[in-house]
Parts: sequence; structure tokens; C-alpha cells
Amino acid sequence: MSLGGLEEIGKNMTVLEWGDDIIVIDCGMGFPDEDMPGVDLVIPDISYLIQNAHKIRGILITHGHEDHIGAVPYVLKQINVPIYGTKLSLGIIEGKLDEHPLDEEPELYTVEAGDVVNLGVFKAEFIHVNHSIADACAIAVRTPVGIVYHSGDFKLDVSPIDGNMMDLVRIGELGREGVTLLLCESTNAERPGFTPSERTVGSSLERIFEKYCDKRLIIATFSSNVHRVQQIINASAAHKRKVAVLGRSMVNVIGAAAELGYMELPDGVLIDISEIRKYKPEELTLITTGSQGEPMSALYRIAFSEHDKVKLSASDVVVLSSSAIPGNEKFVGKIVNAVVRSGVKVVNDSVEDVHVSGHACSEEIKLLMALLKPKYLMPIHGEYRHLYANKDIGEYMGIPSENIFISEIGKVLEVDRRGARFAGEVPSGKVLVDGSGVGDIGSVVLRDRRHLAEDGLVVVVATVDTDAGLVVSGPDIVSRGFVYVKESEELMREVKKIAESSIERLLKKRVGDWAHIKGVIRDDLAKFIFAKTKRKPMILPVIMDL
Amino acid sequence: MSLGGLEEIGKNMTVLEWGDDIIVIDCGMGFPDEDMPGVDLVIPDISYLIQNAHKIRGILITHGHEDHIGAVPYVLKQINVPIYGTKLSLGIIEGKLDEHPLDEEPELYTVEAGDVVNLGVFKAEFIHVNHSIADACAIAVRTPVGIVYHSGDFKLDVSPIDGNMMDLVRIGELGREGVTLLLCESTNAERPGFTPSERTVGSSLERIFEKYCDKRLIIATFSSNVHRVQQIINASAAHKRKVAVLGRSMVNVIGAAAELGYMELPDGVLIDISEIRKYKPEELTLITTGSQGEPMSALYRIAFSEHDKVKLSASDVVVLSSSAIPGNEKFVGKIVNAVVRSGVKVVNDSVEDVHVSGHACSEEIKLLMALLKPKYLMPIHGEYRHLYANKDIGEYMGIPSENIFISEIGKVLEVDRRGARFAGEVPSGKVLVDGSGVGDIGSVVLRDRRHLAEDGLVVVVATVDTDAGLVVSGPDIVSRGFVYVKESEELMREVKKIAESSIERLLKKRVGDWAHIKGVIRDDLAKFIFAKTKRKPMILPVIMDL
Repeated sequence: MSLGGLEEIGKNMTVLEWGDDIIVIDCGMGFPDEDMPGVDLVIPDISYLIQNAHKIRGILITHGHEDHIGAVPYVLKQINVPIYGTKLSLGIIEGKLDEHPLDEEPELYTVEAGDVVNLGVFKAEFIHVNHSIADACAIAVRTPVGIVYHSGDFKLDVSPIDGNMMDLVRIGELGREGVTLLLCESTNAERPGFTPSERTVGSSLERIFEKYCDKRLIIATFSSNVHRVQQIINASAAHKRKVAVLGRSMVNVIGAAAELGYMELPDGVLIDISEIRKYKPEELTLITTGSQGEPMSALYRIAFSEHDKVKLSASDVVVLSSSAIPGNEKFVGKIVNAVVRSGVKVVNDSVEDVHVSGHACSEEIKLLMALLKPKYLMPIHGEYRHLYANKDIGEYMGIPSENIFISEIGKVLEVDRRGARFAGEVPSGKVLVDGSGVGDIGSVVLRDRRHLAEDGLVVVVATVDTDAGLVVSGPDIVSRGFVYVKESEELMREVKKIAESSIERLLKKRVGDWAHIKGVIRDDLAKFIFAKTKRKPMILPVIMDL
Repeated sequence: MSLGGLEEIGKNMTVLEWGDDIIVIDCGMGFPDEDMPGVDLVIPDISYLIQNAHKIRGILITHGHEDHIGAVPYVLKQINVPIYGTKLSLGIIEGKLDEHPLDEEPELYTVEAGDVVNLGVFKAEFIHVNHSIADACAIAVRTPVGIVYHSGDFKLDVSPIDGNMMDLVRIGELGREGVTLLLCESTNAERPGFTPSERTVGSSLERIFEKYCDKRLIIATFSSNVHRVQQIINASAAHKRKVAVLGRSMVNVIGAAAELGYMELPDGVLIDISEIRKYKPEELTLITTGSQGEPMSALYRIAFSEHDKVKLSASDVVVLSSSAIPGNEKFVGKIVNAVVRSGVKVVNDSVEDVHVSGHACSEEIKLLMALLKPKYLMPIHGEYRHLYANKDIGEYMGIPSENIFISEIGKVLEVDRRGARFAGEVPSGKVLVDGSGVGDIGSVVLRDRRHLAEDGLVVVVATVDTDAGLVVSGPDIVSRGFVYVKESEELMREVKKIAESSIERLLKKRVGDWAHIKGVIRDDLAKFIFAKTKRKPMILPVIMDL
């Protein structure tokens, strides 16, 4: 059996292959790094799947977070294969497919935890786990060389909001049967102990509702965290508050979750945002998006006084029921500062336990390993530091170091009766999506964008008559993002003169090679501009022959 | 008395004015935000000081960190005034002035804690405090309306490395005498308790040196933290290790600090980096820059196998004796992941107490307030959330809410015998430095840079003969940072056709207004390109008339 793991933070995808059968677990997207200006999102390179499309029996979805399902519309456009997932996961995918309509009707199959799906040589069993979204599963795949257990994203919640604890019994049964390979998520592998129950957030919310019983509460959280939103609604109902919901994704998710039965909305608690003026501040809870500091989110607009329906005042308290995803700290900080500056109190997870993680800490990972007793371990989902921390846990639990495989995107792990080993690579990597363009942005385009962002642009345009050896028109100099043109008129005049003399020199020499001419102009101007300004704008000569 | 506080994280500057006398406390620079592409650094707008240059009696420096001294070379170029600071602060400033030579010789006056400087109507006393750089001071200014105490950056270290505790006695004496206004730093005001002593880091280092006695230790920290570097050198000497220093600023600071007597270098401990091959790994400590993940720092190059003298191997342990400054988390994370991926252990402040802050936590701020008993309080240095947390502390300590002033850059606080109040504003703000240009970058240039970074650029060039109503040459389409041109030839052909028809239509109509012509071409192309690609590149029409 070979296994192509196309994984990296934010665009999770695992491929299992045996003979003429392939199954794919998850199909996520990621967000661009700061060195990818203008890129909207990043999806996995699936050229290997396209080459082997006839073998693919299906895509199995562990849960409905973007980093596990976000690439589904892009992948289905290229390979139309069946998708299996729980009700909430498929509900979210359907919402996405409405925005990205396909030519062919997609095949979506709803499963429940406990269901087994036959996919060629593979039998995939969905197993209930706890996570920061409802209806999350691990997937145990029976293969000709034994069970491969893919943990999905998980935590153990002994007191979950929906009363449904991770299925330790079934996991233990699989362990007794014998597990060949465990693919185990690593996000919190560096953290000791256990992740607290989602229910602890409820106690903190209760304290906040009591303490600020005379204030309007504006609570931001992840829209996909259905149980969190449920707890906020419950606390509001218990304190006789009405709840208004802000932000497109929050409105959508609450609607979908209630419809699918993942959320219970007490009668008369939800009101429309336009109705809030009918109530006193202390009779209101606003649930909003923007907990990651996203510009243009509802919370951002509220914080910066740009929201048309919600104005901050001394009768407000803002609660961030979330923690900043690495890289978002500064954005969250901006919102906090803007709110505080309006004289409004901010309650976040440094003040109260208003957030818990959805990922297993080291003791939970140990518990999973103790139940499964896998022969081989491949840490997945996380930065390298997390994968290596998970490896340390595996060794602590008695898995021999040589049986633990830390992979890279595209690397193939081959498992057979003789053992397991890395065996080559398949095409893989990042595909950048910008607007409606998928994959038409690459390193050259990004390099140019970074260059343009750094020091701007100087365009030199001239029309020449090469036969006569004359400049017919120009050179005109146009700059953007370089310097204030008005304050630098002298500089721009000098730039024009340099360009002029370069072009005339080249025309006199009868140089006919356009690339060469442009190169000389570029070098002459770059040298002059750097000497004058210590800047290196992009220089773009456009020379037209009459 | 009026007081222009030109403050914000990273470019601290406070102005005290009475009649014909002005003194300035600190003169810092900041680093650009992510929305200022290409900007190298940010300095305060000192137009108010330039207008009143004849009144300025001097600039007083509390300590030698960039955010308190970084703008000195830029300010002295515009107003040549005397500078007062302790030996180390001036030593670092001299280093900067060597790189930015001035026309006139600068007047630098060395002071010691305890010294009083007479500056017109003001008498400024330097008072020893502890901080993450040696020779740091608070400044107590005697004014006609009483004492103004500027805390500088400070912490209370009851067991400092140089044996010299913050001068609580002198501060208490000032308090007994009566303090009118306390300007108090707020960086750690949200944190409860006391900041631990620098010496606690020594104990952690000792544990690390014992635990990894068979490894080479690569320790990254802030170069300006002389006491930290001293502790690393001491631990190395005690464990019979040689120390090699990496990174320009680290080499410079250790040299300067040793020369000025702030550091003791045991004989024969320091070796040149080229000598490390003579020693076994366990006989070596490398002290390096790069603790903030700075690209191209020594640690960055080591982590990414780009350093010519230091290659990572299993016999290394990397210690980050630092914490990530907000906004740098992702950069630090990149280095950690690269190091871990090489199979090398990373020890940071989540594992061992290898770093302490240099700033006072809330109990230390309370102690300062208890000793000084100021009538008025102005929280300074920090984001808004920190300023407001400091205000809460002030109220807790009994300062009436109406006597606490949270200011903004440029706002003037007027203090006289009747009271204190905000009274107008002076010109202030950010001046952006890019290359050798100071202040020639502004919002338009930055907006263009962000636009260029987002979706790149499409240049449309044509030469026309307006009299004949003819396109003589072009239109040529040049794009950068937009799409892969090769894969989008069809798109570029269509863009050319649209441009052609727009220009011809305008020429036929005999439109002679160039701005109008360009506007129409821009709109036509933008509409087409957005419909095709969902992108909005900058469109730059350059039309030349023959």
C-alpha cells in the first residue's frame, strides 16, 4: 500500500492507495502567507489525483472546517468523485457548492458516526470524536495490510455540550483488533495535560453574564463553533436577554445548524439586528464574527465605528470567546485597542476562560495511542515543531523511533507485510487562487508583486524610429508607489534626462535588440535612482518602434 | 506649562514646555506596520520642534533602546541641540551618528544617575532604574509647577546582575517632596504581580548548561540586553566553554559594552567564529542575533542552512532567550520549525524560564505610585489597552479618575496651579523613512504600493496622432504581478483589443482631454479584466501624442 500525504497546515489532504483503488481523506484549503500578496487562498496541487482519477473511489470528510473541506469545490471541478461526510460537514460543503456551481451534479453521501463505507479494496468506518465543530469524525480504514486510523482533528470532551463523547469504546475495540498505522493530529502536541471541556466556557460565560448584568454583551467567536454559539444563546435566554446575530457567516451557520438539528433556538430569543433599538442594553446579547480581527468583519466595523446598526458606548462589554490563530495576533490587537479606546471593557481569554481549544493536548494523544496501540505512527496536522512533539509522545508511549514517520507534502509512505518505509514522491504542493484564477499565479508573479510593494514602479515610455535613429515621442516617465511626484519633480526630470540619453546612445549605435535596449535603460535608471534614493523600484521600459 | 506628548509604541518622544524653554525626553523610532510596504522605519513628526527650535534646551535620553533613541540622527539633522544621557545610551547613539554623519558636531553630554542638568527653567534629575538594557534612568523634572516624573522604561529588580537596584529611596524622597505629574510606562500594566529578576534567567541557563553538557549551545537573545549576554558568558566560562559571537549588532554591542565597562569578559573565553572548528561541540556556546526571527539574521541563516560557518547537527541545542515581540510570532515560528526539522532541540520560554521582561508589572507600577503619590497621572508607552490598564491601576491607588489623562500623539496637557487639562494639539504624527528618503512617502504612495502588491499592474501604451485621429503605434500591453503572461496570451490579446477600440472611439470623437481619455481606457479595461479574472490590477494608460 502506498500513501500520498499531501498535507500542510490549512490544506489537509491524505491519499490512500492500493492497486487500482484510491481514497482521499479531507480536502482543505489554506490562507496565504504574508509573502503571497493578493492571493485569496491556497489549495493542494492534485495533479496526482487527476492522473489517477479513474482509481478514486471517493473523498471522505472528517469535519466541516475550511482547512478540511475548503478545496472541495475546486477539486470537484477537476475530478467528479463521490464525497462522504456527516450531515453538518456536507451541509457546509453544499453551501460552498452553491457559490461555485459545477457542470455535473456532485455526488454527496451523508454518513453517521458508526457507518462503514465500502470503497474498492478499502472499508472506511466513521468514528465520533469531539472537536470545535459538531459532527466531527475520525476515520478507520480497513486495508489489505490492516487498519489505518486517521484521527481527524479531535479532543476528548468528557462533558460535551451535545452529550456525545468521543467513541473511546470503538477506538479501544479497533486497538484490540490491531492497528497498523495511526495518522495522528499534532496541533497541541507541545501542550501538557488535557484540553478543558467546552462546558468550562459555559461557566465563564455565566460569570460574565452575572458580572455585566447591566451591560449589553457583544460576544465574538468562530461561526463554525456551533456548541459555543449554543452556550451563548443558552446563557442569554437564562438571563432574559434577546440575541441578535451579526456577520454573514454567523447568520448562515446558525441558520444551517438549527435547520439540521445541531442547535436549539429557544422560542423568541433571536431577534433581527434592526430590532435592537427596542431593547435596553442589558436586555441584549450580540453574537458576531471577527474574533480573528478580520478587517471588514462585523466586530471590526463595530470597533472602528463603521457599523451602521451597532455603535459602541459605555453600556457595552466586548467578549472575545476565541484565541488568536498564530499570525492574527496583531489584527486582534488592533480591534482590542480600538474598543478599549472607546472606553469599552474587553474580556478575552487572558481575563476569563472564555475559550478552549478543539485539539488534543499531549495526555489525550497518549490516551488515543494507548487505546489503538498502533504499529506505525505518522504525526500529521501541524507545524514541524508540533509533528516532532507528537513523535516524542509516540516514543514515550513505546512506539519504536524507526516506526514513526514524519512526512512532507507529496512524500509516499509504503506499508506492506514486511514493514513501512518512505518510497518516492508524487507531484504535490500549493496552488494559489486569486479571484477566479486558479493556478495562474506563481513565483514570478508573486516576486513581481513583492517588488512592486517594496519600492513601487517607474515606467519609461518612448516611441522611436529605429530606421531614422530618432526618438519620435517621449520618453515619458510615470511612477506609482515610488515617491511623491510633486515633491520630487527635480528627481523625475533627472530620470527623464538619463532615459533620454540612454535611448539616444542606443539608437546612435543602431542597437536593434529590444531586450538589450530595455536592459540598458533599466540598468542606467536603476543605478541613478538607487544612488539618489537608496530605493529599487521596478523599472519598466516600454519602447515602441514607429 | 504645556506638554506635547508625541508618543506611540516604538517612537517615544515627550516634550515639556514652559515659556521660552522646551526640553524633550527620548527620541525614538518605530518599525513599519504591515500596511506600509517598503518603509524601513518610522520617526516622529517634529515640525513643532523645528518651529520652536530656539526654545529647545536639550534632549534627555532615558535609555539606549531603538524606540527611545532611534530617531536621534534624523532629528539632529534638522535641529542641532544638546543631548544628555548615560554612558551606554550615548555610546549607542555615537555608533548611529557614525553611520549618519552630521554637518555640525553634535553636542553629547554624559550624565550619571543622580546628576541634575539645568535646562532653562527646568532642572532634570536622572534616576537609576532597572530595565532590559544597562544604565537606564527615569527622569524627574523640576518645573515651576512642581515635579514631573517620567518613568522611562523600568522594572524593579531586587537582585540585578550589576548589583544596582532601582533607586527607590530617591524616588521616595521625591514623593515626600510632592510630585505633580507622573508619566508612567504601561507596557506590562495588564499583567498581575512582579516581573521576575534578570537573575532567574541565570538559574535557568545553569539548568540548561547542565542538561545539555554534551551539546553545542546556540543561544539567541537581544543584543542590547548586556546583562543577559553577561550571564550567558558567565555560565559558559563556569562550564569551561568558549564563546563565539554571531551577528553584526551582537558583535558591536559586546565590544562597546566591554569597552565602556558594562560587561566583564573573562580572559580567553571569547573566540572568533572562525576558530570554532578547533573545539568539540560541548566546548562551545554561540551567542547570536535573530531572536525575533529577523530574516537574514545570523540565527535565521543558521536555521535555513545558509550560514557559511555554522551548520546545525544533532550535537546542537538552540536556546531562544527572548520572547516574540507582538507581530513577530510567525517569523520566530518559522525559525523554530526550520531548526526542529533539522532534528535539533529548541528550548524557549515555554519550556524553561529563559527570558524575563524588562517592564514593570502591575505591582511594580503600584509601588512606584505609592512612593511618588503623584497628583496627576498620564499613562504612557503602550497600546491603548495598556494605557487603560495603567489608568485602572492609578484609580486603584487612589488617584481620582479626573486626574488621570490618557493622551494621544500631539495632544497638549496643560498643568498650572489651578489644575491640569488637555489644551489643544501641536503638529505631530508619523514620518516614514524609505531608503535615504525621509518624509517623501505618504498615504498615496503607500496606497499605490498596496494596490500593486494586491493584483499587480497592467500598462497600456500607445502613440497617437490626435490631429489625424490615428493610433500611430501600439497599444502595447505590459503586465507585471498580474497573471502568468504565457498562460494568459488569449486574455492579453483581448485586453489589447479592448484598449484599441477604446482609444479609436475616443480619437474619432476628437476627445482632447488626456485625463478623460486615460480615465475611459482605465474604466473599460478594469471592467473587462474584473469580469474575466475577478482581479483589480492597477491599470496605467500612457498615451503619447506624436
